[in-house]
Amino acid sequence: MQVIRTIHDLRAQVRNFRRGSDALVGFVPTMGFLHEGHMSLLKAAKEQCSLVILSIFVNPLQFGPNEDFDRYPRNEKRDLELAEAAGADFVFMPDVKEMYPSEVRTTVSVTKLTDRLCGASRPGHFDGVATVVSKLFHIVQPDKAFFGLKDAQQVAVITQMVQDLNIPVEIVPCPTLRESDGLAMSSRNVYLQEEERRQALVLSQALNKAKEAVLDRSIVTSEALTALIRNHIQTAPLAVIDYVEVLQFPSLQPFESTHSMVNDSLIAAVAVKFGKTRLIDNLILSVRK
Amino acid sequence: MQVIRTIHDLRAQVRNFRRGSDALVGFVPTMGFLHEGHMSLLKAAKEQCSLVILSIFVNPLQFGPNEDFDRYPRNEKRDLELAEAAGADFVFMPDVKEMYPSEVRTTVSVTKLTDRLCGASRPGHFDGVATVVSKLFHIVQPDKAFFGLKDAQQVAVITQMVQDLNIPVEIVPCPTLRESDGLAMSSRNVYLQEEERRQALVLSQALNKAKEAVLDRSIVTSEALTALIRNHIQTAPLAVIDYVEVLQFPSLQPFESTHSMVNDSLIAAVAVKFGKTRLIDNLILSVRK
Repeated sequence: MQVIRTIHDLRAQVRNFRRGSDALVGFVPTMGFLHEGHMSLLKAAKEQCSLVILSIFVNPLQFGPNEDFDRYPRNEKRDLELAEAAGADFVFMPDVKEMYPSEVRTTVSVTKLTDRLCGASRPGHFDGVATVVSKLFHIVQPDKAFFGLKDAQQVAVITQMVQDLNIPVEIVPCPTLRESDGLAMSSRNVYLQEEERRQALVLSQALNKAKEAVLDRSIVTSEALTALIRNHIQTAPLAVIDYVEVLQFPSLQPFESTHSMVNDSLIAAVAVKFGKTRLIDNLILSVRK
Repeated sequence: MQVIRTIHDLRAQVRNFRRGSDALVGFVPTMGFLHEGHMSLLKAAKEQCSLVILSIFVNPLQFGPNEDFDRYPRNEKRDLELAEAAGADFVFMPDVKEMYPSEVRTTVSVTKLTDRLCGASRPGHFDGVATVVSKLFHIVQPDKAFFGLKDAQQVAVITQMVQDLNIPVEIVPCPTLRESDGLAMSSRNVYLQEEERRQALVLSQALNKAKEAVLDRSIVTSEALTALIRNHIQTAPLAVIDYVEVLQFPSLQPFESTHSMVNDSLIAAVAVKFGKTRLIDNLILSVRK
């Protein structure tokens, strides 16, 4: 496994690999502090592609002024061990100066999909995501890129961007990985105090209740589904809700009732703070007649 | 020469050309109604690249609601004859549905460079330009792309976009071509009535006066240079000035005086309406000690 820190070197290596080969290049962009969720993305990339490139870059552009850019967890040594174990061929670890050598004047924005959920509570976040992912796609030029559905809105935004701008990359969404008790894996889980960690279970529990209610059709309105999730989360005294929303998936548009839906998908998504730690989670809900 | 109308076919042809070859692909994006200016871009592409792709697409996204999208001149048959004569290998002519199959939700925006000149008088214009050029670059994936300096602000915006987003394309700016009497070549010149065409000469005349005044240092302030250009243009009774600006080049930032400049470049740029026809022109002015 090679660790590469400059755009120039990465491009040279990829060009070298592609010379005279039609083998696929797979790309897993991350912010590091790797966990089993990232490992599962690398595994999928390894299965589908001949060359697997992992990037680790904590992108300042997607953090708001009062967010956790500075204290976002980093552990380069451990990340490299995990990446090697997972079979990554190249790890691209640029510093901020390498990615943003001068003032950023160009922004990629995706509308419609970004005015709800995390887009509403983190203004500018998805512009930062779309811009850096577009940069990384231009640098790496992969055939396929692997993203976790834990960040479902991010997957929707990037899929839309790739389609609208004709970026020649296939987006492969991969399932959320969970701890044995149901907590969605996240680099930010490390922030949680013991009692916060215990109470954070209400997120996956609440989403599962909504999933069952949609499946057995005991609840059909968006409003009642949202209330169900919200009420369950509020059984945790430390939980401070940022948002709870149930939307159509993948359009992320609101709906009133599942009454007339046939084989549709919804997404139930939540963002909740425990102390200083903001957690997100979501579940895709299938509506069947 | 092959005429290609779909993204799928163009990609297949380019992939086929690139297979096992390191030869360069050159790209000349246009809105058609070709003139000698475009021919000179094709000639430069031909000299520097093995495969030359011309695109002809009148991009609705870069026209404002009251602009000339509908009446923009088109002549497919003549364009194809000229392209063939100039040695283009592929002409990519997608229709609007092919480029924008559904509502456009993704926008590429370049700030700072776009708040003056045509960016100020045509709001949204450069978002439309940056977005479509980014799409075309992703579709064609050229090594080099050729743009005329007649649209100097466009060249600045695209160069900035390519740099900021790490798009792997080299931008090659090419000199403005002029009619024998000095009028900058433009597809829109065909709109001009005889008397308008005669009076339109004041544009290049005024810019040349400014160039001389900067060279011989008879004028040093931005304000006086602008006045010089403005006054000369106003000798044409039919001229209605949209803007006259002298800025630093390529930063497009204002300046007060050339007094302390050493080997710097300025751009004098104008947009003037003659009847319904809006013409632009510019000249790069060299400041020497």
